[in-house]
Amino acid sequence: MTDLPMIDAQRLWDAHMALAEVGRIPGDGVCRLAASVEDKAGRDLFARWCREAGLVVRVDRIGNMFARRAGKDESLPPVLIGSHLDSQPTGGRFDGAFGVLAGLEIVRTLDAAGIATTAPIELVNWTNEEGCRFQPSSLGAEVAAGHIALADGLAAKDENGIRLGDALEAIGYLGTADVALKARAYLEGHIEQGPILEEKGEAIGIVGGSMGVNAYSVILIGREDHTGTTPVQRRKDALFGAARCIAEVRALALDFEPNGRATVARILAEPNARSVVASKVTFTVDCRHQGEDELNVMTGRLREIIERISHECGLSFTMEPYWVVPPRSFDATCVAALRSAAAALNLTSRPMVSGAGHDAIPIAAVVPTAMVFVPSRDGVSHHVSEYTTPEQLAAGCNVLFRAALELAVIADPVAADDAATR
Amino acid sequence: MTDLPMIDAQRLWDAHMALAEVGRIPGDGVCRLAASVEDKAGRDLFARWCREAGLVVRVDRIGNMFARRAGKDESLPPVLIGSHLDSQPTGGRFDGAFGVLAGLEIVRTLDAAGIATTAPIELVNWTNEEGCRFQPSSLGAEVAAGHIALADGLAAKDENGIRLGDALEAIGYLGTADVALKARAYLEGHIEQGPILEEKGEAIGIVGGSMGVNAYSVILIGREDHTGTTPVQRRKDALFGAARCIAEVRALALDFEPNGRATVARILAEPNARSVVASKVTFTVDCRHQGEDELNVMTGRLREIIERISHECGLSFTMEPYWVVPPRSFDATCVAALRSAAAALNLTSRPMVSGAGHDAIPIAAVVPTAMVFVPSRDGVSHHVSEYTTPEQLAAGCNVLFRAALELAVIADPVAADDAATR
Repeated sequence: MTDLPMIDAQRLWDAHMALAEVGRIPGDGVCRLAASVEDKAGRDLFARWCREAGLVVRVDRIGNMFARRAGKDESLPPVLIGSHLDSQPTGGRFDGAFGVLAGLEIVRTLDAAGIATTAPIELVNWTNEEGCRFQPSSLGAEVAAGHIALADGLAAKDENGIRLGDALEAIGYLGTADVALKARAYLEGHIEQGPILEEKGEAIGIVGGSMGVNAYSVILIGREDHTGTTPVQRRKDALFGAARCIAEVRALALDFEPNGRATVARILAEPNARSVVASKVTFTVDCRHQGEDELNVMTGRLREIIERISHECGLSFTMEPYWVVPPRSFDATCVAALRSAAAALNLTSRPMVSGAGHDAIPIAAVVPTAMVFVPSRDGVSHHVSEYTTPEQLAAGCNVLFRAALELAVIADPVAADDAATR
Repeated sequence: MTDLPMIDAQRLWDAHMALAEVGRIPGDGVCRLAASVEDKAGRDLFARWCREAGLVVRVDRIGNMFARRAGKDESLPPVLIGSHLDSQPTGGRFDGAFGVLAGLEIVRTLDAAGIATTAPIELVNWTNEEGCRFQPSSLGAEVAAGHIALADGLAAKDENGIRLGDALEAIGYLGTADVALKARAYLEGHIEQGPILEEKGEAIGIVGGSMGVNAYSVILIGREDHTGTTPVQRRKDALFGAARCIAEVRALALDFEPNGRATVARILAEPNARSVVASKVTFTVDCRHQGEDELNVMTGRLREIIERISHECGLSFTMEPYWVVPPRSFDATCVAALRSAAAALNLTSRPMVSGAGHDAIPIAAVVPTAMVFVPSRDGVSHHVSEYTTPEQLAAGCNVLFRAALELAVIADPVAADDAATR
């Protein structure tokens, strides 16, 4: 496949910029909350582009969009390529969009070169990946993977009490296609959302799996006291206890880097009055690791930290999980296809494990899956300033293109070579 | 004055219990927010009791109530005795009430014993001590002391935009008496609101002054990052920085105990999302000390802590004062009168410095002032479970009674002795 064409970097960039006009907000950002009118406009634009490319678009019963390019053997399950078009409220132009538009660019490149694949290729836009309007995140992919029942997914409500099913119907994207997923492979391109590739000066992250998450809500209970009248050693100060926990969680994180993470990002103190010692503090601890055993060790150490500090500060505590996801390994064949593609293109790459959630993670449970990361400037995402250069996007798209072709031609390289050279 | 009568402990307790029915809330607490209908009912009851005792009640233009018992020499300024009848939203039965009702009990005891004083005695109920409906706290006393202009005090608004002046008028307590204060002495009894007297097993705190307060709002600014994708050492985590500051403020407090306090009681993190590293954390640091020099040293060390930790964590910071009060010394003669009274009554006592705010603190700037503390069970105040025993209240009231009499007879002990024995 060494004579394969390259994708059109300018066309790929132009598609990003055109999509970024949909739900545009100040500072080059976008707001396309799932199943909103902006999401509808983004979906409509994507559907129009797909139909212009001759693809057959269908929408399933949770609003996931599929756009199919026929294969030479239509009895084969397709190679899926995609991501999501919804965004955070003040999101950027590349998170999600890249994976979907890379798929579109791959189809356009195949068409321009007149390449037929043995297996069909399907582009996919998963519903509600961001999880900021409806929970949980990756809802469409979770339903497609069979982890969440369709009825439960449709019943998810936003903060105004609007059901996802009703919101999808209102924008014309409550489809009729079955949600059952049958695919030969799933490839997803995504911005890294972290600083590693940029820091290392590497073009491509070959994502071999995802970190597991054990995330807890911790509550420390102390006692209200007057800040002016109660000596410090007589207090049961829940905020002091929380501060010690936060400092130790940082030390825990450092012990498990680079393959793990631990973070306290959310805190609420009560009564949160300037002259009353805090009697109750709630905070979250988000532990992640790519190894299941290590994740369990982290969690055990976290519990020891909370117990010890609570005891030393005269506090009681509770520690309840709010999010538990096991580590997942992606498919070795898909990962190898991506790695070979990067090598063939002379692109620098590194094996990575995703610390963030992606549609690929639930899908990996039912379809052979792998992901490509491209660099994020300053590691920033979920922000209007999110940026990846046209060249970096093109590099990621070329890797996806070659891997998709390898996975879709199915031991029939001659057909692809024929197509590429005719 | 060794033959002076004792106050009536049961009558004092009964007055507390009767007043506690006004604005009563579950759990034996009270809610009498300043200038509310409950405050009016409390004021009405107090005024009725005063008139029944033959006192002349007047209300000044900021709603402070004065109830005067004539002296033999009406040209002399009065000895003031009082505190406040307003409460926290879920306050207790003794905070403020004790100081006012102790004054009433002193008058009743004088009347029952037929004792005349040379100088007049005036009971006082200061407006809006708690500061929870209108800011600042001790507003009525601050206006009386000339620290806040009358017009500014009347213009203070509650969270619904209601002016204090309008609220006082609505309950019939926007008086016409001049706010200028002229008094020979001011004595205030109060619950300790801390654990010291109970812990030491002592009956009386002789309060010789008040701690100064240097209280700051600190803002740490870092950067949002994804908790799953950004290695800990690459982050600018404002919550981690705040946690380190809170831990060091605790160590600072321990260095300055028992004469100082330092507390972080309020914290707000942004965006306060579970998977986004906190980019901004605002917290308060409340430093108090009875010595002005020590308070300045504390404040300097606090600034060093914030600067150093911000630097080490890659954060920027601001540190703005929101409350600055110098330490105040109460009047030596008044303090000596209280100390002598406690000794004459064979009550255990200790010199104390108030760490909390009280009406006596602004008044001390313009009138010779001292305070008596009585024990708080478990150090608790501003809570429905606040409690002081009838015997403890009586002990404090007896000390105030004797000291008031000493201050009000003015180098004419014979007159008092005559009165006491006739």
